[in-house]
Amino acid sequence: MPTTIRAGEKKDMQAVFALIQELALFEKRPNEVHISVADLERDGFVNPPKFSTFVAEENEHIIGMALFYERYSTWKGTALHLEDLIVTQEKRGTGAGKALYTAVLKKAHTQQYGRVGWEVLDWNTAAIDFYKSTGATILKDWFVVQMSPEKLATYLEQPSDENF
Amino acid sequence: MPTTIRAGEKKDMQAVFALIQELALFEKRPNEVHISVADLERDGFVNPPKFSTFVAEENEHIIGMALFYERYSTWKGTALHLEDLIVTQEKRGTGAGKALYTAVLKKAHTQQYGRVGWEVLDWNTAAIDFYKSTGATILKDWFVVQMSPEKLATYLEQPSDENF
Repeated sequence: MPTTIRAGEKKDMQAVFALIQELALFEKRPNEVHISVADLERDGFVNPPKFSTFVAEENEHIIGMALFYERYSTWKGTALHLEDLIVTQEKRGTGAGKALYTAVLKKAHTQQYGRVGWEVLDWNTAAIDFYKSTGATILKDWFVVQMSPEKLATYLEQPSDENF
Repeated sequence: MPTTIRAGEKKDMQAVFALIQELALFEKRPNEVHISVADLERDGFVNPPKFSTFVAEENEHIIGMALFYERYSTWKGTALHLEDLIVTQEKRGTGAGKALYTAVLKKAHTQQYGRVGWEVLDWNTAAIDFYKSTGATILKDWFVVQMSPEKLATYLEQPSDENF
């Protein structure tokens, strides 16, 4: 069955959300998904949109998606960031993932972005090997740092002379 | 001398660029800076801007800057990303860095972002310890992946049956 790739529309956000949940469940972190279908339908379709998607379709059924948005590098200027690339478990190995990946890279090439970036889990050697085979560079000397709204609030509750 | 923090304006981009160059030189990678002052003046002040800045000023002289923009997490929704936090070498240790950092976190808190994120070099233990002390989480199981426009072009030049 042929896989087709097209830009995601508002009506696809239910399926996109299902893929996000499927991956979180697979990673044993279902409670980490704080967004909803309504959030995706709003945030992806406001002006300007906060993200864009490509979806992979087989017989008019969505089997995968890539979600991406712009970033800004102080070395390379406007960059495209691939936040998520998900293919539903039973359709992995069918080429849908590579087709989505290639669609994002084509967009970055056509629109002359100064860089494409994404992140990969260090144990995902199959993905790492694939990315390397396409010419991507795996940077091993950077840590990703994150702060939650709760930790933010705790930090900012400190007396301000402690902060400065 | 007191340090003041304020939003960066177009007239500050020359000083912001000088800080970007200073850091690249310090990291022995001055040729990696492909952007110009004109790029920053355009990209930070188009509608919508591709990034925002805070600058640290001492006697009306800019000694540091933080550059940030929105990202989108499929778990947490709209997130704030701190791309660069730079204080000119002779002014490190004066509290300007912490003041800039706190200004960014305050903005994220006030505007109710679902997450704040950034990246840190794995050898920069002083920065890592500081971030941890403020409640940030250092994720050690992710690799940052990047692809240059040149590698992109090479990948996309392959026959399309190789791509799918």
